[in-house]
Amino acid sequence: MELIDGKAVAAQIKLELAEEVKKIKAAGGKTPHLAAILVGHDGGSETYVASKVKTCEEIGFKSSLIRFEDSVTEAALLQQVIALNNDTDVDGFIVQLPLPKHISEQKVIETIDYRKDVDGFHPINVGRMSIGLPCFVSATPAGIVELLRRYQIDTQGKHCVVLGRSNIVGKPMASLMMQKSNPGDSTVTVCHSRTKNIKDLCLQADIIIAALGSPEFLTADMVKPGAVVIDVGTTRVPSDKTKSGFKLTGDVKFEEVAPKCSFITPVPGGVGPMTIISLMKNTLLAGKKAIHFA
Amino acid sequence: MELIDGKAVAAQIKLELAEEVKKIKAAGGKTPHLAAILVGHDGGSETYVASKVKTCEEIGFKSSLIRFEDSVTEAALLQQVIALNNDTDVDGFIVQLPLPKHISEQKVIETIDYRKDVDGFHPINVGRMSIGLPCFVSATPAGIVELLRRYQIDTQGKHCVVLGRSNIVGKPMASLMMQKSNPGDSTVTVCHSRTKNIKDLCLQADIIIAALGSPEFLTADMVKPGAVVIDVGTTRVPSDKTKSGFKLTGDVKFEEVAPKCSFITPVPGGVGPMTIISLMKNTLLAGKKAIHFA
Repeated sequence: MELIDGKAVAAQIKLELAEEVKKIKAAGGKTPHLAAILVGHDGGSETYVASKVKTCEEIGFKSSLIRFEDSVTEAALLQQVIALNNDTDVDGFIVQLPLPKHISEQKVIETIDYRKDVDGFHPINVGRMSIGLPCFVSATPAGIVELLRRYQIDTQGKHCVVLGRSNIVGKPMASLMMQKSNPGDSTVTVCHSRTKNIKDLCLQADIIIAALGSPEFLTADMVKPGAVVIDVGTTRVPSDKTKSGFKLTGDVKFEEVAPKCSFITPVPGGVGPMTIISLMKNTLLAGKKAIHFA
Repeated sequence: MELIDGKAVAAQIKLELAEEVKKIKAAGGKTPHLAAILVGHDGGSETYVASKVKTCEEIGFKSSLIRFEDSVTEAALLQQVIALNNDTDVDGFIVQLPLPKHISEQKVIETIDYRKDVDGFHPINVGRMSIGLPCFVSATPAGIVELLRRYQIDTQGKHCVVLGRSNIVGKPMASLMMQKSNPGDSTVTVCHSRTKNIKDLCLQADIIIAALGSPEFLTADMVKPGAVVIDVGTTRVPSDKTKSGFKLTGDVKFEEVAPKCSFITPVPGGVGPMTIISLMKNTLLAGKKAIHFA
């Protein structure tokens, strides 16, 4: 069994990105600039955004943080989105989700200029990914594909079972794994809450991507010997063993599943660290106008 | 075994659409207007477009046919697309594919205003379908979903195996069948040329949607008793028994598969007739501004 070390891969990519930014700057090019809009004071969102800003600094990107209180109107938020669309110095930007209930997340997402949509949530980017065209792929699926690539995991003709059909992980993951590409070219099965024989299906899988948000859902009896297991779950489970009072828990019962696998990602330190770094890669692509140049 | 009579369903929907158009006109509303651009003189394309124009007339839609020779430049074609985008009388339009090799189909598709993209090929419509938002669903997948609905075939929690991963059938079909909707809510497996154990997977399927374009690929030994089989194949196979010299052949070996099925579509007369009628439904939706009203 080999542990997929997302933390190490992310650190390596960070160095690669920093190197490329250095070269761009040395050649007189523009410093890539990521902006983030943060509404309110949700603990998770604060942490994520702070981490994104910090990673920008480490890589050499310019970053901007725009804050609103929870009481901000949808109109005011949309106005800010449009301002960032029109700001030629900003290469890409994100609106940290979730948003307060009085604001339509979908409306906000669709107002973002798809050429600056480094989160890859705009329907144009989702559609282009499905068709197999260049696009911003959302960060978590992109990070998983990058892990498969760096660990040279053979995916062609393999049976990949995706657990979960969320718009931000399950569906795009299925879409990427079935494309004629490498990684990709897998036979793909998508399971979800309505699936009846999930254990039978998992037992057939060469690759399992677990993104249900259901702590320790995948147990050893559901996994074929030699399978590759990617754990996307990050549920905060109460714990008296940590200072924070909770423990980040994946969708995989790691201790019993790991010995059966050829490769497995831990939680934390697997998929998680790849998410922010994938956003950074998208920002660099946006800065270079490498995806959408129309 | 029950035969899914696509011809009869299409005829029924045609009456329903004609009835609705009559009401719209009686209330002083605008007559829905579908335009089609046809480049060159490909036999298949001529037939399809002629059939679309005829169906428009039967339903009471206005239709326009714009023809170009094979030698038309991409720029001239794009100019025509933009003219239709700006023509307020045209509710929806299609550019009949395939196009000559010197023209980028993708560029043409992406130039179409997505609000008039009744073929549902624009990335925005593809992306919105994946996310589960209102959109124009492309005609063949929409027609198949409509058949499942009209025959009240239970899809929730069923295992649906899609054979083929084309952008116009396989991928959208998978996307629709996994949505939280009815029809939909299925466990979905997508098989394709790289799939190794396609027979094993088909044998597990409650619903098989065959869209490989491989004549008589699906044989009786690959089908579980009681399965629902939808045949999307329409390959022209040479035949000395028909006047035309060819026979339209599906992906399913009908004679031997049919007796094992609970429901099956024939070729011709199954999915085929639903395709044009789905385009007509999209045109009516476009005329009513029912999907994209932004």
